[in-house]
Amino acid sequence: MSKNKELRFIGTIHSTLKSIEDCPRQEKEGAPAATIEVFDEFVEGLRDIKPGDELYLFTWLHKADRKVLETRPRNDHRLPLRGVFSTRSPDRPNPIGIHHVKVIEVLNGKQFSVSNLEVLDGTPLIDIKPFL
Amino acid sequence: MSKNKELRFIGTIHSTLKSIEDCPRQEKEGAPAATIEVFDEFVEGLRDIKPGDELYLFTWLHKADRKVLETRPRNDHRLPLRGVFSTRSPDRPNPIGIHHVKVIEVLNGKQFSVSNLEVLDGTPLIDIKPFL
Repeated sequence: MSKNKELRFIGTIHSTLKSIEDCPRQEKEGAPAATIEVFDEFVEGLRDIKPGDELYLFTWLHKADRKVLETRPRNDHRLPLRGVFSTRSPDRPNPIGIHHVKVIEVLNGKQFSVSNLEVLDGTPLIDIKPFL
Repeated sequence: MSKNKELRFIGTIHSTLKSIEDCPRQEKEGAPAATIEVFDEFVEGLRDIKPGDELYLFTWLHKADRKVLETRPRNDHRLPLRGVFSTRSPDRPNPIGIHHVKVIEVLNGKQFSVSNLEVLDGTPLIDIKPFL
């Protein structure tokens, strides 16, 4: 079997976080609301999303360094290097982000707003699943 | 920006589940232990994984139908069709699986065993993150 696969972006995130410096270090330190936009070819999959739903959003952290295998948590240089699979660093071979959010409002057939999402404006969306 | 990206498989799952028919419908119905094997080029990222760690494994559900946008939960034909992003169906545009597991044993520098993993033998691994 081939050792790679094509991931299709299903949408994009609109956020007030325009650069890494705007981002809180951990989501619980207070991330802003954001608007999720799903591309036309995938909107059929969205139709049961409603306000109050708790979701996992999966994103592609497109600014990440995919060559990193060891890192320091939170970029704190006092801490020892750790294997990247024991951290949540965005820098990793496949920079998949996972975000637990709550739907605030369904804006139209292709856009909805969510609370507490720490990702940069323009980050690609790759999947949405219900939070169980 | 391009609308797709190359996902690199970082390893593979060895499981006693050899076909869809072997799989319990939901993970809590009793999934078996499995062995995770990480490919040589990524093993440096594994070095802090230890027994007892709770992890999220991210997999690529390679048997899935990527054209599906609406589905019936658990393939139950008495239930109405739902938008796929409100379900956990493996059939979806990017068939990413997420699995909460516990490390049982580190077998060597590239393999470790985990409890309770419902994925088919040979399923590609795409990421590992600590469960918080």
